[in-house]
Amino acid sequence: MKTLNVIKIGGNVIDDESKLNDFIQSLASLNEPFILVHGGGKLATDLAEKLNIPQQLIEGRRITDAETLKIATMVYAGYINKNIVTKLQKHKINSIGLSGTDGNLITATKRIHQEIDFGFVGDISIENVNSDFLELLLQNGLKPVICAITHDKQGQLLNTNADTIASVLASALATSFHVKLTYCFEKNGVLSNPEEENSVIKNLDWETFQKLKEQGIINKGMVPKIKNAFEALANGVKEIGITSSENFAHFIKNNSHEGTRITSSF
Amino acid sequence: MKTLNVIKIGGNVIDDESKLNDFIQSLASLNEPFILVHGGGKLATDLAEKLNIPQQLIEGRRITDAETLKIATMVYAGYINKNIVTKLQKHKINSIGLSGTDGNLITATKRIHQEIDFGFVGDISIENVNSDFLELLLQNGLKPVICAITHDKQGQLLNTNADTIASVLASALATSFHVKLTYCFEKNGVLSNPEEENSVIKNLDWETFQKLKEQGIINKGMVPKIKNAFEALANGVKEIGITSSENFAHFIKNNSHEGTRITSSF
Repeated sequence: MKTLNVIKIGGNVIDDESKLNDFIQSLASLNEPFILVHGGGKLATDLAEKLNIPQQLIEGRRITDAETLKIATMVYAGYINKNIVTKLQKHKINSIGLSGTDGNLITATKRIHQEIDFGFVGDISIENVNSDFLELLLQNGLKPVICAITHDKQGQLLNTNADTIASVLASALATSFHVKLTYCFEKNGVLSNPEEENSVIKNLDWETFQKLKEQGIINKGMVPKIKNAFEALANGVKEIGITSSENFAHFIKNNSHEGTRITSSF
Repeated sequence: MKTLNVIKIGGNVIDDESKLNDFIQSLASLNEPFILVHGGGKLATDLAEKLNIPQQLIEGRRITDAETLKIATMVYAGYINKNIVTKLQKHKINSIGLSGTDGNLITATKRIHQEIDFGFVGDISIENVNSDFLELLLQNGLKPVICAITHDKQGQLLNTNADTIASVLASALATSFHVKLTYCFEKNGVLSNPEEENSVIKNLDWETFQKLKEQGIINKGMVPKIKNAFEALANGVKEIGITSSENFAHFIKNNSHEGTRITSSF
């Protein structure tokens, strides 16, 4: 089976031009096929602020109203996506920027919640991925760069969590490829002591995750990220790691321990 | 040779939701392969205004500074492009939104002008088109929707005239397809009397064009549009028309005279 990397980056890389350039350079040196998934970053929030579009949060979760979706589409699918692709092209990596609507890549279902109206937020599962289309691109040497916008097939774009997109894409491709899923974030890995950068947990199994979650050591945004990772493992993704954008190339290439590996499943 | 339509739409369709929906429905009923090229529209100007980014014009021509390019990338490659694709997906037309940087589709050279610094504006010719990539998509039933953003292969996005993109794409594909190039705009065709909607010139040859231009009957934005059309004809594009978004489907299907056909070359 051919190797395929699914790599996810977030705001900490996207918002920092110099970090992003370094990351793109590492990615260009990878010498293995990849799909890059990116989230949003500060730019969308800044733009909403400048345009006086209030950002609603309910229980800490962002609500995507029509105006916020418009901004997300402009910033994620437009500015960020095309800039990443252009930077890769500079390094002679023939990439292609896509949202979920392009080539019907990822369909989604608008989230229905009993109490909270999340607005234009789309939930996805493996069945929503057009793997044939991705395989066509990969077979032809193209490197997909995918933003976190999906669609419902009824003419509506939807905002979808980028960590989930990475996990679901990796899972959908696990029957055709030896998939390596790597989440890049601001730390070197999952820390056993949040105050101590060197306390990276090398191998994280489900039991330890549960324990650290109960102790509050793993919390906030890390919980769904790691849950996504365990789910991908259960779905047949072969290698899953959480590391920093600076370390990811070493992490992938050398199999060395510069990050956290998700090992045993549920 | 297989038929391929290259269709260009501009602001008058893009800015009007109901016109755009009607146009997409016509396009979905076409039953022939197509590439859609779209320009910008009012949204980019509105956004620049809201963000207090002054729009510079020198001798009536727009200057694309860094901030204006950012807006163009967000609006053209993001909002407009993804909305058109999503509307097509609703009609079960599997389209794919692209800018010139995606799949290295269209490279461009930053315009150098002795007196005017146009900013991040890219000029293109047939050699800049990655026809193989377009053919791959078309062979696999995908309908490309292309915005007027290109790149220079050195990491820089550039703003390129959408009429020119349509003409150059049509020309580049003329060796592999029977290409029909159609410009949709706000009139039913080129008018011999600008005050009279019914004065559509059915067939426009180079000589008549020169005459009408000298008389000032064809002027402003129509001159480069028609020049682009004549250039495409010289490059082997088989059928070229200028019509309205409302009439275009009839124009293409019936070969009837609901628009202007560009006939003899230079």
